[in-house]
Amino acid sequence: MLPPNHIQALTQIVGAKNIHTDSTHLSVYSFDSTRKELLPDCVIFPETEEQIAQIVKYANLHKLPITPRGAGSGMSGGSINQGIILGMQKHFNKILNIDTQNLSVTLQTGVINSKLNDALSPFNLFYPPDPASANFSTIGGNIAENAGGMCAVKYGVTKDYILSLRVVLGNGELLQIGHNTIKDVAGFNLLGLFCGSEGTLGIITEATLKLKAKPKFTRSLLLGFDSPQELAQTSCKILASGITPCAMEFLDTLTTKALNTMHHIYPENAQAILIIKLDSNLQESIAYETEQILEIASNALFTNIAHTQEEENQIWFGRKNASQACSSYGVKKLNEDITLPKSQVATFLKHTQEIGKQYNLPIPCFGHIGDGNIHTNVMLQDLKDLDKGHQVIKELFQIALSLGGTLSGEHGIGISKAEFMPLAFSKPHLELFKNIKHAFDPNNILNPHKMGI
Amino acid sequence: MLPPNHIQALTQIVGAKNIHTDSTHLSVYSFDSTRKELLPDCVIFPETEEQIAQIVKYANLHKLPITPRGAGSGMSGGSINQGIILGMQKHFNKILNIDTQNLSVTLQTGVINSKLNDALSPFNLFYPPDPASANFSTIGGNIAENAGGMCAVKYGVTKDYILSLRVVLGNGELLQIGHNTIKDVAGFNLLGLFCGSEGTLGIITEATLKLKAKPKFTRSLLLGFDSPQELAQTSCKILASGITPCAMEFLDTLTTKALNTMHHIYPENAQAILIIKLDSNLQESIAYETEQILEIASNALFTNIAHTQEEENQIWFGRKNASQACSSYGVKKLNEDITLPKSQVATFLKHTQEIGKQYNLPIPCFGHIGDGNIHTNVMLQDLKDLDKGHQVIKELFQIALSLGGTLSGEHGIGISKAEFMPLAFSKPHLELFKNIKHAFDPNNILNPHKMGI
Repeated sequence: MLPPNHIQALTQIVGAKNIHTDSTHLSVYSFDSTRKELLPDCVIFPETEEQIAQIVKYANLHKLPITPRGAGSGMSGGSINQGIILGMQKHFNKILNIDTQNLSVTLQTGVINSKLNDALSPFNLFYPPDPASANFSTIGGNIAENAGGMCAVKYGVTKDYILSLRVVLGNGELLQIGHNTIKDVAGFNLLGLFCGSEGTLGIITEATLKLKAKPKFTRSLLLGFDSPQELAQTSCKILASGITPCAMEFLDTLTTKALNTMHHIYPENAQAILIIKLDSNLQESIAYETEQILEIASNALFTNIAHTQEEENQIWFGRKNASQACSSYGVKKLNEDITLPKSQVATFLKHTQEIGKQYNLPIPCFGHIGDGNIHTNVMLQDLKDLDKGHQVIKELFQIALSLGGTLSGEHGIGISKAEFMPLAFSKPHLELFKNIKHAFDPNNILNPHKMGI
Repeated sequence: MLPPNHIQALTQIVGAKNIHTDSTHLSVYSFDSTRKELLPDCVIFPETEEQIAQIVKYANLHKLPITPRGAGSGMSGGSINQGIILGMQKHFNKILNIDTQNLSVTLQTGVINSKLNDALSPFNLFYPPDPASANFSTIGGNIAENAGGMCAVKYGVTKDYILSLRVVLGNGELLQIGHNTIKDVAGFNLLGLFCGSEGTLGIITEATLKLKAKPKFTRSLLLGFDSPQELAQTSCKILASGITPCAMEFLDTLTTKALNTMHHIYPENAQAILIIKLDSNLQESIAYETEQILEIASNALFTNIAHTQEEENQIWFGRKNASQACSSYGVKKLNEDITLPKSQVATFLKHTQEIGKQYNLPIPCFGHIGDGNIHTNVMLQDLKDLDKGHQVIKELFQIALSLGGTLSGEHGIGISKAEFMPLAFSKPHLELFKNIKHAFDPNNILNPHKMGI
């Protein structure tokens, strides 16, 4: 609990209606989608950048931890902490300018991802990064975690869309970083660094993001395979041929079986499901790419091509319900988002099956095979297996790293993966991270104790 | 000149054949394409990463400046300095692995851009960033300056292609940064920061870069306009329609006239020339986009579409000779690479014309209108006009910044634009740059006194 004099000073900045220390508020803002909990000392809803600058200056002076938070839907504990929580969703939720000439949008960072896309729709524009949380996560959270999603295989991730940011640093200084230009090489590229920095380098108040013109046509395909390995190898061949679908998702054997048990949607012989979505302004292009895919995937057991919206919905039904179906394997799911070079996915899936057998824990996998981002779910049938589950996760990380992969493709490190950072980074590398943090936030007040630094 | 004991110690690391202090070597390595000069104390050609680490450790211990250099073709003085020049082109010139499964390449940073593309050609792959210096500049230099080029309008710039780097920091520690994966959110994103850092944060020894499958078909179009402003507005409309050419270049009135005087290639009424290149795996797509462009550009005075290689060469002849043609306006060219939001290019060109008239200096402009990157050439008819020329450049920068643009789109800051950094960045922003530099290189030995920090 913060001493009353701090609360009083902060109240003077934002007004009594925007600061909360009651147990309900503290409790609501104490967790995110990791289901881990850290109780803050107070929750503040700033109304202006100037207020944020003043709050940070005050926090810096008194060395109070301060953590920005959007919707709190993160998967790694990035938005939970002790000290002050800055809730951005309440007042920083305005789209400021949709620029149809430069194909960009300027907005406050509390705007929800899907609400941005709703607003862009009348202009036939869209903002591609599409985390599974798009319906509730904020752009600020997306930037802080460098959110990915299904369309990353074609359209890239959040960092590929940031043109400029307005940021309050750890000393309360407000910076305008970057320009609404494709090219910009003046000074260090701080945009790339802020994206994925998990609120540890500054409070991002506004962003200008690149947009894309919405393609006129899409088509979805579903292919069944004999094994996840065969599926992974075929996916890799499709991508290497130069075809870039706007989504390329998969379900492994355990996920496929769980979905079939619940919904009977795939032929019995299917051991793995590949789902592809193509988009283009030209039907001819989609027809050409479909033909190429079917040729490369001649080893598929079966193929469905959607011709109607209903058929498209059917094709995507399994993927949309994959996470829920996996839950049938246990009472607790330890889900990771390991990412691998595309060529190593088949090998990784084989190792995962073996480790699952060795520890007698089901590990259903599904997700973004087009960019090697595999949602790896270690299922516990009993909560007393938690230690065993964590050991399995550690082994999976070690395998992923040995195959040239990374701890996290889109969820971030936060607190949930912090302990594994020394597996992935050398001491000098972690030391450098600390030095960078210090350069932006010398008193370590911004979302401290995250990322293992 | 370095004292003999330093030369002796460095010779022990790399061997006598790889260290040079003779006046010929020092002179050859004292300049780049800016035609500015800084005489180094010695030139070293390291053979291994281990040698680089040892050299940097030694330099760090004795606080000797050390600057990496590729081909020395930079446009801002990034690769010239006093102290030690590390010449990377001699021994660090190997392509280590072309990975056709993950569409990536791993190479040493002294490899020349076009030699990489020659090596990729048999695999039907290419590395898109195409600075005008591609035939001689190295990938290391391209990364250090975040090089752009014509294809940035569709394919982006160097920073969009870096998957991983091996880097020697200012303390001599070797780091492996990033992975051969599309997604990676573990730890701070240092790839984005190293790209464009002009050799001030570390010595980049190896890189893994994304590749693209080469499109099967291309088509070039040339359109003439009544004025550069009309051309700029039409270009903006074409891009906003969702068409993304792989090159979209322009010549303003002065450039067009200079080319016509020398080569009589355009109709007399042409006041501005737009050149567009489309690429696709489908002829239908190119035909569709051509049709769309002609519809949007119905205000064009004339249109040429290339149907043969010879016609394509004709269309590009003017752009390729633009820089040389502009030289007919004076004895010295002060060329900048100001970049603007696309919607502001027309306004910027109008201001440029007015300033040219006001100062009685021709300012022919040409370049990458598709991404707003305008090569602005202030032509001096007499060397005694140098101060006036610099005043014009300063005014052009001020206008560009007021329109939301940036000092440099692809050449970097180095020493040539360092004095203008306070125009573009606030004091806290420049202070942050200094703190970041300190985090990577506490003794400020890596390419010091660059970027205005």
